Amino acid sequence: MEFLTSTTPAHALGLIMSFPLGPLREEEVSLEQATARVLAADITAREDIPPFPRSLVDGYAVRAKDTYGAREGTPALIQVRGEVLVGEAAEKQVNDGEAFYVATGAMIPDGADGAVMVEYTRQAGDAVEVTRTVRRGENICFRGEDVRKGQVVLEKGRVISPFDLGVLAALGVSRIPVYERPVCGLASSGNEIVPADEVPGPGKVRDINTHTVSSLTKGQGCIVRFAGIAKDTVDDIIEKLSALRECDAMLLSGGSSKGQSDFMTTAVERLGGRVLFHGLNIKPGKPTIFATLWGKPVFGLPGHPVSCAMVVLRFVQPLLARLRGEGRPLPPRTVCGRLTTNIPSAYGIEEYVRVSVEKREGTAPLVTPIFAKSSVISTLSKADGYVVVQEGQEGLETGVEVEVLPLG
Amino acid sequence: MEFLTSTTPAHALGLIMSFPLGPLREEEVSLEQATARVLAADITAREDIPPFPRSLVDGYAVRAKDTYGAREGTPALIQVRGEVLVGEAAEKQVNDGEAFYVATGAMIPDGADGAVMVEYTRQAGDAVEVTRTVRRGENICFRGEDVRKGQVVLEKGRVISPFDLGVLAALGVSRIPVYERPVCGLASSGNEIVPADEVPGPGKVRDINTHTVSSLTKGQGCIVRFAGIAKDTVDDIIEKLSALRECDAMLLSGGSSKGQSDFMTTAVERLGGRVLFHGLNIKPGKPTIFATLWGKPVFGLPGHPVSCAMVVLRFVQPLLARLRGEGRPLPPRTVCGRLTTNIPSAYGIEEYVRVSVEKREGTAPLVTPIFAKSSVISTLSKADGYVVVQEGQEGLETGVEVEVLPLG
Repeated sequence: MEFLTSTTPAHALGLIMSFPLGPLREEEVSLEQATARVLAADITAREDIPPFPRSLVDGYAVRAKDTYGAREGTPALIQVRGEVLVGEAAEKQVNDGEAFYVATGAMIPDGADGAVMVEYTRQAGDAVEVTRTVRRGENICFRGEDVRKGQVVLEKGRVISPFDLGVLAALGVSRIPVYERPVCGLASSGNEIVPADEVPGPGKVRDINTHTVSSLTKGQGCIVRFAGIAKDTVDDIIEKLSALRECDAMLLSGGSSKGQSDFMTTAVERLGGRVLFHGLNIKPGKPTIFATLWGKPVFGLPGHPVSCAMVVLRFVQPLLARLRGEGRPLPPRTVCGRLTTNIPSAYGIEEYVRVSVEKREGTAPLVTPIFAKSSVISTLSKADGYVVVQEGQEGLETGVEVEVLPLG
Repeated sequence: MEFLTSTTPAHALGLIMSFPLGPLREEEVSLEQATARVLAADITAREDIPPFPRSLVDGYAVRAKDTYGAREGTPALIQVRGEVLVGEAAEKQVNDGEAFYVATGAMIPDGADGAVMVEYTRQAGDAVEVTRTVRRGENICFRGEDVRKGQVVLEKGRVISPFDLGVLAALGVSRIPVYERPVCGLASSGNEIVPADEVPGPGKVRDINTHTVSSLTKGQGCIVRFAGIAKDTVDDIIEKLSALRECDAMLLSGGSSKGQSDFMTTAVERLGGRVLFHGLNIKPGKPTIFATLWGKPVFGLPGHPVSCAMVVLRFVQPLLARLRGEGRPLPPRTVCGRLTTNIPSAYGIEEYVRVSVEKREGTAPLVTPIFAKSSVISTLSKADGYVVVQEGQEGLETGVEVEVLPLG
């Protein structure tokens, strides 16, 4: 009965992913600052990479046909006309029966269509004996072979990797158009919550969620603004939300268990906002609120640290990915393994079960559930990941193959 | 013949992992700064978490035995003695036949050993009807159930996760002992290399490796110091190495192909250092140098961007993990899939092949090699990971299961 009014995870994600966001702000950053930022525009190559044919080896630039049939006993004798220095233009032309010495990275002179490694040559006065056949194109990286001028090399919405940075550097794109980092407003609530650096009095506990949520959110490229810990009153929550008004999204943890949720929903409504869902058909994480306020998305996150973290991973992070402009978020890196124990679960609820994973040589990894209450943060710290038991499943049986999702 | 003098990857890793490092420096950081840092000491719990028994639900703290046999039609009638407010001490004792209202997170008063959700109760004047049996311990998180005082909760050498941060916050560890970030000195070399923000003249190309190596290294928690681009002279390389003398490790890219390697080895030796290996039995990445100089590790990295990146992933990152104090680096998250095409490879060389991975519903992911020259940086940007062909294998055949390692 209690779940009848809850929202299904699929419906909730639908609301989250279709929440109308304002236009994303853009800025330009240097190569040094660009890693893990999100491209705000397609990057089109303004030139060929490499800009000229380059030797991939230390050796001789030759005309391949001059070496046909060459071998150890019957080498091809080719006249060496000089050397192309690395970093300089190759100004001479290679004619029939001629070669130039080229070190790795040197420009291949016109007329040459292959390079032979010095290991397959013998010097012979002004000439060189080539002891094997060179294929056309062998050991040359041609102009534009890496990137062709006019080609879109990196697409808008892409999270910039260290190797993307290499591509940008190669193209001379040293000012990179990216989306601004979204600003994520954060507050805790609860009469029992004290800051982590205080000694809690009787009945009080330290603030955990602010730290895990802040870390997960920053890890996703957000700027975090923390408004402090609200008491369980509508006025206090209104004050915190108002302080975070300029943020792109607001996350309030600990304000949405049954006893406290009224404060949060009332605060949102008094400020002119609207609750989009209240109560999620998941475990842990049921007392989750999603609302719109001042046109911004607001989450009321469960107070239990494990519930709070799971809701961030499953529901908040997809929203933040949208806020940072990620075009097509990469699928998480999962591990498949076999369950060592049954996982019981109630039909009709999507359940997240923390697991440990043990790799075994020559067989599938072993996946063992860590059963613990949703208030127990230490199990998240120990877990290697989590498994999802779908709403339509009544638990999972020993031996079945399961997909382990990463925690963060 | 050319590989006879090369070092095997296993031997090289042995030299790298046994390189004598100085003592690691330590510092204290706040919770806000601690994510992804490495713990410099075991963290022992100075208190129990939670510090008192807490209700996990909104409901009534009861003596479980008072509810035995209770059900919808024959509820147990229990006297409500009051309410324990969240964040306050429970000062009263629960006696037989008595209950206190407790919201989620409230302290469970002495004498109570279970909590019943409000959904399973009906108010009846000063009393409450409980319509189901409560098990002992039900809906209570006991004192110390999450973390027990005296327990080592996080071990020295651990990379701090967002959830570890939650554990530290719960324990009130707001100054965290971590190892200082290692300082990684970086320089490029090569007469053909110009900075990424310059237009290269004839025969010249932009510096790629500085940017990929810097990004990979920072991503591993290092501070990067860049000394600039050296010309291919012993003096210039000596100048760059000297400028990086105070760094914990020195990485010089592009100076170790056959034509250029003499400058690097000569520079190291003139400065009083010693080359530990020169030439690795891998592809790409052969022209790699590892040396000791002023007691510090020095890498000469290949100039080809793909070779350079692969050597960083396979050989430099394990060293940096040691320098940052990682106790037991986590195994990389790999994906297993089936090869769609043969991968040819020479016997006796460890080969790294970039691949793309296509996930398929209900079957193993498809792994397709991306064949390209080691100078082609765009393939690294496009690849989903790489596959290792062991030294003792002559390639891999279509259909075999392969493990895909992550790029970074």
